[in-house]
Amino acid sequence: MLGVIRSVYRSHGFDEIETPVMEDSSRLHAGLGGDNEKLAFGVMKRGLTPHDLHAATDALELTDLGLRFDLTVPLTRFYASHRAELPAVFRAIQIGSVWRAERPQKGRFRQFVQCDIDIIGEAGPLAEIELITATQAALVALGLGECSIRINDRRILAGMLGHWGVPAGQQERALITIDKLDKLGADGVAAELAESGIRTDGLADALSVSGWGLLDAAPDWLHRDAYRDLIALRDAVPSATLEFDPTLVRGMGYYTGTIFEVAHPSLGYSLGGGGRYDGMIGRFLGTDVPATGFSLGFERLVDLVELPGDDDSEAIALIHERDTDPAALVALKTELIERGSRVRLEPRVKNLRVLLDQLAASGFTHFASVDATTTPASLNLKPLSQ
Amino acid sequence: MLGVIRSVYRSHGFDEIETPVMEDSSRLHAGLGGDNEKLAFGVMKRGLTPHDLHAATDALELTDLGLRFDLTVPLTRFYASHRAELPAVFRAIQIGSVWRAERPQKGRFRQFVQCDIDIIGEAGPLAEIELITATQAALVALGLGECSIRINDRRILAGMLGHWGVPAGQQERALITIDKLDKLGADGVAAELAESGIRTDGLADALSVSGWGLLDAAPDWLHRDAYRDLIALRDAVPSATLEFDPTLVRGMGYYTGTIFEVAHPSLGYSLGGGGRYDGMIGRFLGTDVPATGFSLGFERLVDLVELPGDDDSEAIALIHERDTDPAALVALKTELIERGSRVRLEPRVKNLRVLLDQLAASGFTHFASVDATTTPASLNLKPLSQ
Repeated sequence: MLGVIRSVYRSHGFDEIETPVMEDSSRLHAGLGGDNEKLAFGVMKRGLTPHDLHAATDALELTDLGLRFDLTVPLTRFYASHRAELPAVFRAIQIGSVWRAERPQKGRFRQFVQCDIDIIGEAGPLAEIELITATQAALVALGLGECSIRINDRRILAGMLGHWGVPAGQQERALITIDKLDKLGADGVAAELAESGIRTDGLADALSVSGWGLLDAAPDWLHRDAYRDLIALRDAVPSATLEFDPTLVRGMGYYTGTIFEVAHPSLGYSLGGGGRYDGMIGRFLGTDVPATGFSLGFERLVDLVELPGDDDSEAIALIHERDTDPAALVALKTELIERGSRVRLEPRVKNLRVLLDQLAASGFTHFASVDATTTPASLNLKPLSQ
Repeated sequence: MLGVIRSVYRSHGFDEIETPVMEDSSRLHAGLGGDNEKLAFGVMKRGLTPHDLHAATDALELTDLGLRFDLTVPLTRFYASHRAELPAVFRAIQIGSVWRAERPQKGRFRQFVQCDIDIIGEAGPLAEIELITATQAALVALGLGECSIRINDRRILAGMLGHWGVPAGQQERALITIDKLDKLGADGVAAELAESGIRTDGLADALSVSGWGLLDAAPDWLHRDAYRDLIALRDAVPSATLEFDPTLVRGMGYYTGTIFEVAHPSLGYSLGGGGRYDGMIGRFLGTDVPATGFSLGFERLVDLVELPGDDDSEAIALIHERDTDPAALVALKTELIERGSRVRLEPRVKNLRVLLDQLAASGFTHFASVDATTTPASLNLKPLSQ
């Protein structure tokens, strides 16, 4: 599966990079990771004395490194360090594990693999179009063409909240509530907003708006640039699986423009997402650099994809007595491997049926009883029933 | 490269498993990892209060997890947990990162990848023979057939030290010194042993012994089982690249029988190694289970292997103006990808020569200047000189 994803992203012009699993604590806690920063595993400094422990006023002081909680923070560090050698528009593939100190549950793991593509250096909607096109191609290659991609723009959300009369100071809180629309429904969201003292005039109406109809109606509170970018996106990705959802929020605070999320009809959580984070790299470099990224959650994909069986044309188990001359066994095994088979030596056990069932279940196609005199020519191969 | 290694090991009947990067601190510090335990990165418990810090008497108390320093400790945990479902003889492939808090230097990294194969449940030399045969096949497949595999047996080392008159209590210290034979030479080793008050009668003679001659001479201090196993190994792996070296030590303390190491003529450090560690799994399970393993250091292999270029039949850079309609660009790109090319969009820059050189260096074979009207048919492809 990773090979399929990698190959699609490569064909779309992205280059793979790999970064270390540990990053400096100071970088992991620089405010770029939003809520995920709180979920970072900290790595303790080496050689700490009891005195060091007693002198510390905060646990974070005792760490110098931590495990990355996403691949975006490492990418921004990588880009800042290597900018001089990188192309003006840098398209990166990153496939790697990330860690979050959360309670594991369905679709949520302590360690999981993200497959990210990012485009750094492209300010226009071409970046979003390339990311979405490449991600759609990867999903199709995995047999997941039924996935849809929901898009929105943070600037449209801000405009919509302003239009409802939600003051700037309450917008972040309102977004957290709106993010629960899937779970609470429009009425639930309205109730929770009202509880927080956020005015909800016209809210129910707005929440019921959905799809491209809003863009076509183009109300005057629609952010002009966001409108233009979304129209460009829709024109370039003329797919029924691309949905505009003006209530899509996404958790991370660093998004500045478009945001997107992959949905699968059978799942209550997203398979991945991303967006534009133009301000983030500037935090390291001093100069602003436009950036967009799209991340797929590998374990969530694994649950959906029908993996083809290993394509071993022939996988042979050689059943031998424990005291058979090992040199003869390995010579036979080597000859069969050289003829293109996968080969495993198995000492004979009392209950041969159980062993054969195990072998069939793990993809072996044939077995033979062998001794020190067996040759490939004298091998009495029997099929293993699957 | 990993694909090649993985495929060879699979054809030799091994199954790949993957374990998490973090293990419980208690397991990482159970005395199974030898000196490497001291190099483990510790992960701090979450939610520690200043009171917790002040109450701790040792830094290790503040950690509950750590980063694995090898793949053997995770394998023994995996085996202990899954033994009931695993075959009587379990052959595992593990390819993954490990971490050690060492000062990085040539051939030594803070994070590096090990490619391990292990056979659990086979007490006889068949295990060693299969491990060495598979490892040799992997090295040959990588074009590293010139590597040699040095073998020895801890029981032979112990017999040899006893024969020299080194008392049991001094043998471990003597081994640490003998392990430096490559660096110090026989005289240097003798001098360091003498300094430590270890008697060295007959030592120079013994250290000059090397190769299979010692086995053929079969002096009466040779451990009988070790002798029998090594002869079986030599008969089964009739290769000029297999060397018996009675002074080979290897650092880890948990080896109980054969030990082996991969040497390359151009390197002063090994590419990998392994051995038999029969006592280790018993520490978790209560019952002894025989086990052997062979580990290759991926980064050290990378330095040696001539990587073939990516086999892109055609990789095309499309040079466009920044203001070209993105929908047209992405449509053209998509058509070319569907015809089998790797495609990258590149905004035109002032110094086109520099851009074209960069593209050629990163494997692109062709370029074309495009605008919103370009079609695959009208594309004016020019080759990029490598």
